[in-house]
Amino acid sequence: MRMRISRTVLVVMMMVSTFVIASDPANHAVRSAVEQVLHTQQDAWNRHDLKGFMAGYWKSPDLTFFSGAHETPGWQGALERYRKTYQSEGKEMGKLEFSDLRVEPIGNDAAFVRGAWRLTMSDGKMPHGLFTLIFRRFPEGWRIIHDHTSAEQ
Amino acid sequence: MRMRISRTVLVVMMMVSTFVIASDPANHAVRSAVEQVLHTQQDAWNRHDLKGFMAGYWKSPDLTFFSGAHETPGWQGALERYRKTYQSEGKEMGKLEFSDLRVEPIGNDAAFVRGAWRLTMSDGKMPHGLFTLIFRRFPEGWRIIHDHTSAEQ
Repeated sequence: MRMRISRTVLVVMMMVSTFVIASDPANHAVRSAVEQVLHTQQDAWNRHDLKGFMAGYWKSPDLTFFSGAHETPGWQGALERYRKTYQSEGKEMGKLEFSDLRVEPIGNDAAFVRGAWRLTMSDGKMPHGLFTLIFRRFPEGWRIIHDHTSAEQ
Repeated sequence: MRMRISRTVLVVMMMVSTFVIASDPANHAVRSAVEQVLHTQQDAWNRHDLKGFMAGYWKSPDLTFFSGAHETPGWQGALERYRKTYQSEGKEMGKLEFSDLRVEPIGNDAAFVRGAWRLTMSDGKMPHGLFTLIFRRFPEGWRIIHDHTSAEQ
């Protein structure tokens, strides 16, 4: 009996070790891929390429974008919101910086990201806030399926 | 060759069917469990039981709470923020209603939730907004590990 328990413990330990060894590089790969999408978005924004920025989002009517008390549904809706807020008369995109990024893989095909954003405008103002993103892995790559962004109130 | 392709297609179809049959009840169970936590939170809030409300959160220093541009780390920090905002001198908890809940299971041990919140205060004011929650399954049940809440700006 004692022998059987020890053997069970040994098997469990081996399974756990295998899982840890197998999952760490996978998590690292997920983190790198997701961070790459965010860096690409930041670079696109800073050359005022809104379409390039939007490439990080799931191009679907099911994308959701939360800001304040307002939900903007769909990729097209999110694009129009960005255009109105940052590219219409008297508006500017400014310089975007993401910071304090924390990417948490959930399984192999999803991740959630916590982070902070800051814009530096030409008049020196710095609107800033926080975001929570949900990413999913698609055949074409990792894409944001939900974005919750908030600003200083 | 044609026969082998058909057989492959058949096997894939069987695997997909098995997956759909197996995953639907699991997803349904996750949704029910997560919604139950939120209903329990709403009920606790509405009898002004803040500790009961806080039972829906992961009791850990690693819980994160985002609101506006401010991050409150840890379960204790979140409790203190709620106390200060809703139970200190001249403040009130009001009546809380969640609506438009969308629970999305991610695997068997995580889920993300989109929803709207509204408070009705004794003076008739109705502060309201949106939230994104990340849930994880723990041995003691489903708990919120991250809360991003925003209000009308």
